[in-house]
Formats: sequence, C-alpha cells, structure tokens
Amino acid sequence: MTYCLGIRVKKGLVAIADTRITSGNETTSAKKISIHKQGKNNIFLMTSGLRSVRDKAVTYFEEVLENESIHFDKMYKAVNAFGEQLRRVAEEDKASLAASGLSFNLFTIVGGQLESDKDHKLYLLYPEGNWIEIGEATPFTIIGNSGYGKPILNRTLTYDSPLNFAIKCGFLSFDSTRVSANDVGYPIDMVIYHKDTGFMHETRFDEKDTGHLASMWGSKLRDVIHEIPDDWIDDLVTRVEKQGEDNRVRQIQVQQQQQHH
Amino acid sequence: MTYCLGIRVKKGLVAIADTRITSGNETTSAKKISIHKQGKNNIFLMTSGLRSVRDKAVTYFEEVLENESIHFDKMYKAVNAFGEQLRRVAEEDKASLAASGLSFNLFTIVGGQLESDKDHKLYLLYPEGNWIEIGEATPFTIIGNSGYGKPILNRTLTYDSPLNFAIKCGFLSFDSTRVSANDVGYPIDMVIYHKDTGFMHETRFDEKDTGHLASMWGSKLRDVIHEIPDDWIDDLVTRVEKQGEDNRVRQIQVQQQQQHH
Repeated sequence: MTYCLGIRVKKGLVAIADTRITSGNETTSAKKISIHKQGKNNIFLMTSGLRSVRDKAVTYFEEVLENESIHFDKMYKAVNAFGEQLRRVAEEDKASLAASGLSFNLFTIVGGQLESDKDHKLYLLYPEGNWIEIGEATPFTIIGNSGYGKPILNRTLTYDSPLNFAIKCGFLSFDSTRVSANDVGYPIDMVIYHKDTGFMHETRFDEKDTGHLASMWGSKLRDVIHEIPDDWIDDLVTRVEKQGEDNRVRQIQVQQQQQHH
Repeated sequence: MTYCLGIRVKKGLVAIADTRITSGNETTSAKKISIHKQGKNNIFLMTSGLRSVRDKAVTYFEEVLENESIHFDKMYKAVNAFGEQLRRVAEEDKASLAASGLSFNLFTIVGGQLESDKDHKLYLLYPEGNWIEIGEATPFTIIGNSGYGKPILNRTLTYDSPLNFAIKCGFLSFDSTRVSANDVGYPIDMVIYHKDTGFMHETRFDEKDTGHLASMWGSKLRDVIHEIPDDWIDDLVTRVEKQGEDNRVRQIQVQQQQQHH
C-alpha cells in the first residue's frame, strides 16, 4: 500500500509520501507525489490507490493545466478540475476494472495556495471526485495505510505547531508505519510549502539520511515504556500468582481427601 | 468498533478488550471477553464484529461445553468446536443479514491451555470458522481497530518478554488506539493466564485506575519527540526559507526590469 500524509499548520504545508508500489508479490518504487505549476504558484498532489488510475488522471490534469485559456486562481477550482478528470477516468475504465474484480479506487491529497486564496489549502479527494477541506481542528490527513501513524499525530500536532515540528512529527509517524507495514518503505519524498515566502520545495530522504533518527526514536520509545510505573502490574501479577498457587494447593488437598475416603 | 488484543509470551497469555459497542450513532457498553470452563481449565474468548453473531455463537458454544458427553482435552478441539458453532450461526443468519446489506462478520481470539496441551495456546478465528495459531515470531494478534496499537507492540514485544512487560505494552497499545478511535474506550477488561500455576484471572480497569498512566505516557512521548535532533529539519527549513526569499527577490527584480523597459 502507501503512506501519504498531508499536514496543514499555520506556517505552511508538509506533504510526506513513501515510494513503494506493490503489485501482487512484486515491490517496485515510484513517486507518489507530484508538483504542478499553475501561474507563478505550485500545487502538490499525492495519491493512494490503483497506479493506472493515478497515472491517467494526473496526465489528463496536466493537459488541463497546460491549456493556456484555462487558469485557476483558487485552489478549490484546481481541485474541482482534478476531480473532473478523475471522473473522466472512471467513465473510461471503471467498468473494465470491475469486470476483473478491481474497484475503482484513488484517494488524493492536494495542497497549495493560488493567487486569490487568502490562505494555504489542503484537500482530501475521494475516488468519486468529491472532496473535503482539511481545517484547523485536526490539521492533517492520511491516505493509504492510515492507522499506524495516526496516534502520534493525534497526541502532538496542532494547527499552531511550528513548521519544523510538523516535519518531525510527520517523519516519526511515517516511521511508525514503516515498522508495522511491509508495503511502506524508504525512500520518502517530502514537499514543504513555506507560507511566508510562498515557496514550495521538494526533497527526498533515504534510509541512510534518517535511519539513525528512526533507531533513536525506537530506542527512546522503549525507554519510556520502562519508565512508566510497574507497581500496579506487579501487584496484579503477584495476586494472580498467589491465587493460582492457592488454587493448585486446594486442588491437591481435594485430591488427597478423595484418596483418604 | 473494538480493540481486542491477545498476547502469548513464554510465561503466559494476556487478553485485553475494550467494552464499547457502537450501533449506528449509539454507544453502549458490553463485555467482549468471556471465560468458559472446560474441566479444571479455562478458555477465554474475545470477539469483534456483529454483536448478534457473537451472542448466538457463544450461547451455542456454551451449550456444547455443558454437554457432559463432550470433553475437549486440547485447545484446538475447543477452537474447532467454536468454529463449528460459528458456521451454524452463518447457516441460520447469513442470508438475512446479507439481504439487509450486512456482511456476516465475526473475528475471535481464543486462548488457554487444556490438560493435553503441552503449551498455552492462542488462536485467531476468521468469520468462516477457519483459524490460525499465534506463534513466537509475532507473539500477538489484534482484532477490531488493529492499526493504531500495532507499532508499539512491533517495536517492543517478543516471545521472551516477561508477563508484566506484556501487560504494560498491551495497555499502552490500547491507549494509542483510544486516542485515535472514538469507538474504543474504557473500561477495559483484562484476562491473564499464568502458565506456571495454570491459573486464569480476569480484572477490569476504569479510566480512574489507569488514566494517570495514559497521561504520563502521552506526555513522555511528547518529550521524546522533542529530544529527537532537529538540526536536519532546521537546515531544511532554513534552506527552503532562503530559496523562497531568493525567489521572491528575483520575481520583484523581473517585475522592476519589465517596468523599466
């Protein structure tokens, strides 16, 4: 599967995607994140689902963006346009996929800020082409293997978190997914949108870049577990041991009595 | 949904289940774990799925256990018997459920040790009544909301972990699920099987019993995140800021040049 995480904090956007593609038993690597120019600004797209659906929808969307008579001044308009192209792919391919037992399935995270947007925006698009906007209450959204990385983000990330902290939490949530899902792996792509300068930057991390942070995180987590008090558990286990022992003695006594009679 | 976790370490078994039942918008509380007597020994069952399927299958299974002409001396025989009762429920109810768009769905974790078992056993049963045995490589299994609590167990728990440590990791994995899933909550039921004495003990924790450990865990986790080095992120963000600033200056220069010509 996939791990794609989009974060929207006050100071900007962070997008993190792994690069692993699973096709039956084969594992290959491909970019799941792409940056698209619109005027002076940029939009990023991340997808999880059928790769063929993604490639066609992104190709069609690129063609729309290249059309000079069309210009999107707000993010929601670009997102609508991507949704339209996704519906076009559904019209073309959904029936054939269904005939082979494959469901038409593509989730997309879209982020950026265009010239008439007051703020930077983050959207989650469903396979049907409809979408939700990611707000301030839960300032992130995950597609693909969404369970493993969520607790750490829920515990720590708020809309007021600095951009640096958002990057760190995002990376650690990727790492929590990596240890639990064999279909999510390095390298990871990261896109950062820095609101103050309106600049979108893409970078890639390999295991050799951040692997030592992952092991440090793992070992510190284990330390913390040991720091959580044990007394309530020790009491519990001692009680269980004692009850078990009493029980065993009682059973032996019952057996002995039965032998005496 | 549900969070049910079964752990099998060298020294015994640990079963943890939340008690929240979701039916449409309504949330109620019910036991998901039950202990069944078989001769001098006990078997525990935990379920996730349709409550009506569970209640019927457990009722039928209890009737089998009460039948004095039937005795199971090994766990796999008891598990087979439960699977048979589950298939009986499927025969009776599956079609009616399907007619209302509900899929026949019950996952079950079964654990214990009967007199001819060399070792304590832990099984995961699928809705079809077939099962797998939980071995030493990954000494736990989760049903219900299985994603959130898995990373911590993957990082820490091994077959050689002491029983006390297994209880602690299990509790913390429950807590990771609780913060991310609104359909998993206190109180939690715990069953401990202590191999040396053959004793099975059940206990219940409310938020007031272990809530302070959960907050300590949350705050220590946040501390650890802050302890992970930031320099690579600071470098990255500084580079992005600088590139963004250069970009902005260049755009202004281009605009000024265009105005001059």
